[in-house]
Formats: sequence, C-alpha cells, structure tokens
Amino acid sequence: MSSAAPSTPRLFGFIAGSDGPWRIEHVQAVVGEPIPTAPRMRVVADPLAQLPANASWSLRGITSNERYVEREEKTKLADKQQGLGRVESTRAALIPIRKNTAWWALTQDERRRVFEAQSQHIAIGLKYLPAVARRLHHCRDLGPSEPFDFITWFEYAPADSAAFDELVLALRASPEWQYVDREVDIRLALDPA
Amino acid sequence: MSSAAPSTPRLFGFIAGSDGPWRIEHVQAVVGEPIPTAPRMRVVADPLAQLPANASWSLRGITSNERYVEREEKTKLADKQQGLGRVESTRAALIPIRKNTAWWALTQDERRRVFEAQSQHIAIGLKYLPAVARRLHHCRDLGPSEPFDFITWFEYAPADSAAFDELVLALRASPEWQYVDREVDIRLALDPA
Repeated sequence: MSSAAPSTPRLFGFIAGSDGPWRIEHVQAVVGEPIPTAPRMRVVADPLAQLPANASWSLRGITSNERYVEREEKTKLADKQQGLGRVESTRAALIPIRKNTAWWALTQDERRRVFEAQSQHIAIGLKYLPAVARRLHHCRDLGPSEPFDFITWFEYAPADSAAFDELVLALRASPEWQYVDREVDIRLALDPA
Repeated sequence: MSSAAPSTPRLFGFIAGSDGPWRIEHVQAVVGEPIPTAPRMRVVADPLAQLPANASWSLRGITSNERYVEREEKTKLADKQQGLGRVESTRAALIPIRKNTAWWALTQDERRRVFEAQSQHIAIGLKYLPAVARRLHHCRDLGPSEPFDFITWFEYAPADSAAFDELVLALRASPEWQYVDREVDIRLALDPA
C-alpha cells in the first residue's frame, strides 16, 4: 500500500514559539477566535502531526491542485509571479482562514462565480505580482477537525508592506469574504537569531 | 486552536482482515499495484491513523465539498439518489483510484471539461440512480504520501450487480480514465459473521 515519497514537499508546518528565523511583529484576529501570542516562528516541510515541545501553536497545510484558476489565468499568473525565498523578501504574512458551512454547500460553479466574477480574487492578486510571493496551503481535507480551511504564506520586501495591506483589504471587502468566519493575520520580519 | 467536532463524520476507514460484516468476494487490480487479499472488511467512522493490529490493509478517505458538480446537476442527483444502508443493498464495491501527475497539473476548467464534457461522468452516474448509492472520499490532501487520490464506496442490491458492472465499464472507457494510473476494484457481500 506504500507510495513513493513526493519529490517536492507538499505538507508544511508553521510553528510558533521561542525560536525560528521569523520574528512575529503583529497578530490580529480579524474574524473569530484569536491564537496565542508568541515571539518567533519557523516554517518546516513535512512536520510531525503533534505539537512540538515548547511550541505556542502549530498550524499545518498541504499544497494541492488549483480549485478555481483557469488556464488563461494560470498563464498570466505564471508570467508575473516569483518564488518564495527572495533575499529582499524580509517581511511575511501568515493568514489562516476558515469559510463557513454556506460556502462549502455551494456547488463548483457557484463558488467560482463568487470567487472571481463577483470578487476578482485572481485579478486582485495579479495586481500585486511579482512584489508579493505566495504559497497557498489547504487544511480542510487534512482531517475532520482542522481549525482552518486554508493557510496562505506571503513574502515581500519592506517597501511593499503598504501594497500588501492594500491587497488584503481589497480581498476582505469582496463578496467572497462574507463566507469567511475565522481569519487571523500574522505579520512577521525575517530576523535570524 | 481547537475547533468543534463535526456533527457528522467526514473521515472513514476501510479495514480489511479476518473480521467485519462485509465478505470480500473479488479483488481486481485494474491498473497498477494490487493490494493484499483478505477475507473480510469493515467500514469505520473516524478511524485511527495507524493500521489496526491484525488488519491486512486499511484505507482512509474524507468526504469533502464537490469539485465539479454544478447546481443544476446537483439538483438532478439529489432528486434521484438514495442513501447508504438500505436493507436490500447487500452488495458493495470499494474502488480506490489514483490519477497521474498530468491530471493534477490541469487547471479547473480543463479538468471539468475532461470530467463532464468529454466523459459524461455525472450523466453516466445519474443513469444508475437510485439503484447504486455511493459515497466519495478524498485522500490526496490527507497527507503527502497517500496511496490513492479517491476512494468510492458503492452499495446496491444483488439484482443490480450487472448494472453496476456496466456503470464501471462505461467510466473506464471514458477519456477521464486515461488519467487513472492506479485502480483496484474490490467487490463485497454483506454477510454479518
């Protein structure tokens, strides 16, 4: 029943506590229950399921196939986007969100309509490329009791912090965000101890 | 970071070994690696991650939101389908499948086109309702090294066995199945020991 290990990691853990290269600068519970505060955070590939000793909190998510993006949009995104880990990207945001039962009861065509036709989720994101690099992780199907449905990790240069704020506010003002029932916005600065 | 337990189970385990109410009648490795033989199987909600002692094999999957079905199709399906556990449904099939890298690299519009426009996956399934009841489980996003991407559990009456064979053959002959790189077809009869 075994399967080969994947060539690139898909499962990532975000572990907050007393150590890690990212200093947590600000945590805002935008909607719903907050998370505990912690001074630092690290991102790890293939984390253990258990909370590591001394961690304040740990979140997990898995990269997956695209759920809404169509071919023409993917081509535009691929042309403009850049990867994580750029040397100038010393600021980051970790934004876990959960959507409500009404969202998950929508059919695929209905969710796509809210996501792009009504909310321009892809078009808004495109405006901030390549300044903002991102990786989307899914959590909802990791198990039956995950605290969030998605976790997005964003990286950008300090000079693009205001642009990033603008991006996040544009998405929060969209019809899609009426389905978000929990969101935490965690801002970080790269500061290897 | 905790979240409330879901009201209905989403994660299911299929555990084969020496006991369980379902007698395994036939196992066929349709494409790719086979699975070990076993005399009996049981279906459990919220299984442990580990293989239970004395089990020959164990597969896990989670029910999730629909990935392709549109509103009009969902209405038609809901009107015709019946639930699992009907007293006359003493035959079942457990069909785990895995799709290849080319499938997962397709965008949403491309996958939908193969799934329905080219393969009539929903239309074919509709023809066999309400005779065949089914529950689809996703596995691909449970973790990074699951042996299958999907597991479908089907239940039907003995008199509908030939119709079920027809359904399965129609799907296997469709363009969508060119993306299937592993499939095992396990047939079972309800036979409480």
